[in-house]
Amino acid sequence: METVKALTFDVFGTVVDWRASIIREGEAFGRARGVGADWARFADAWRGLYQPSMDEVRSGRRAWTKLDDLHRESLVRLLDDFGITGLDAAAIDDLNRAWHRLDPWPDVVAGLTRLKRKFVLATLSNGNVALMVNMARRAGLPWDAILGAEPARAYKPRPDAYLRTADFLGLRPAECLMVAAHPNDLMAARGCGFRTAYVPRPLEHGPERAVAFRADARPEFDVVAQDFVALADELGA
Amino acid sequence: METVKALTFDVFGTVVDWRASIIREGEAFGRARGVGADWARFADAWRGLYQPSMDEVRSGRRAWTKLDDLHRESLVRLLDDFGITGLDAAAIDDLNRAWHRLDPWPDVVAGLTRLKRKFVLATLSNGNVALMVNMARRAGLPWDAILGAEPARAYKPRPDAYLRTADFLGLRPAECLMVAAHPNDLMAARGCGFRTAYVPRPLEHGPERAVAFRADARPEFDVVAQDFVALADELGA
Repeated sequence: METVKALTFDVFGTVVDWRASIIREGEAFGRARGVGADWARFADAWRGLYQPSMDEVRSGRRAWTKLDDLHRESLVRLLDDFGITGLDAAAIDDLNRAWHRLDPWPDVVAGLTRLKRKFVLATLSNGNVALMVNMARRAGLPWDAILGAEPARAYKPRPDAYLRTADFLGLRPAECLMVAAHPNDLMAARGCGFRTAYVPRPLEHGPERAVAFRADARPEFDVVAQDFVALADELGA
Repeated sequence: METVKALTFDVFGTVVDWRASIIREGEAFGRARGVGADWARFADAWRGLYQPSMDEVRSGRRAWTKLDDLHRESLVRLLDDFGITGLDAAAIDDLNRAWHRLDPWPDVVAGLTRLKRKFVLATLSNGNVALMVNMARRAGLPWDAILGAEPARAYKPRPDAYLRTADFLGLRPAECLMVAAHPNDLMAARGCGFRTAYVPRPLEHGPERAVAFRADARPEFDVVAQDFVALADELGA
């Protein structure tokens, strides 16, 4: 681990609580526009279309398309499924940008602030640059660089998403530590030569689906930490 | 100007004093390794190879090559021209990374800190991502995003360098204000639809070649400001 110079972060789920934030945004949108819906179900359904929409691009069936555009197509479909009608394009755009306004988990800003003293911090998310920039400004996330899928033009877990991010940082993969709440993301990064830190987020899918933290749960990863403050402790930052 | 949402910055010359910094780095390198040279002439010669090296890529004669690599090739050539011999690869790499350690002009951090409250701040430099990240960490430059030539895979003043940067930011060109000390950079940005702010840096090429500031010198640009603090004043930030 002494070779690690940069930490690269998954964002949705790992850094921010997308589900509670989308529910909050949906409820506010519903109140403002007089639209009723089960916003928890709406949030889960929207996220449910996330992987299938990226699969079209990963497979090459579809040219590069940024996540904001995929999210918006999914949203239009969902509004129809939920019987929500009569919204103009500006209203749909506003709701789509709920993904730019996600809240970080409570430990994130304190942890990143410590980690930044010792490591380069970069996003390695499937979120597009504008989304990540707007989220970071609102939430106070102190990234050194916004990288990941859009600059790399490859959605995780495609190897190019990881390899091109390391190349942008001027580092070998072994000098990069991927931080994520999702084992499949970490396994793909590891397959590219990255070091791995597993930070489970038991509440990602809501309190009903919470799973207790176990430090010994995933011995295949280099570090397992309960949150970003614990990660800073582990890495001596 | 009310439509402007992001400021995109030229960096070498506009944000940092590359010449005094490279002279300082050369002198320190020379002292540490017992190498004598006219480091001011060395700095000017190194910078003199900058545009020709990028022209190979701009013209398509050469595949995409990041600036660190172009700088290093120029450096190897210059060391030979200056009769500096006997350096190993690690020493040459160290001197090449002098470009990662450039100092900002005195007004920069204060000006950017104010501007960041109102605008997204992104680099739009020909410098590669790692160079910009390392420079920003050392100098305390509070960028929201490191963009420009490498993510866009096009060296300024090619239009794609500007247009792809605006696209990464999710903005129309008219929502971006290009800030630069070099009229040719601003004219290229303007040709792509960007707004323009001219911040001359009279000392860029050394005190002997200083030119007095004149606010009315370039009426073709939307803003002319003496430094980044004056730019923040002009933009109400």
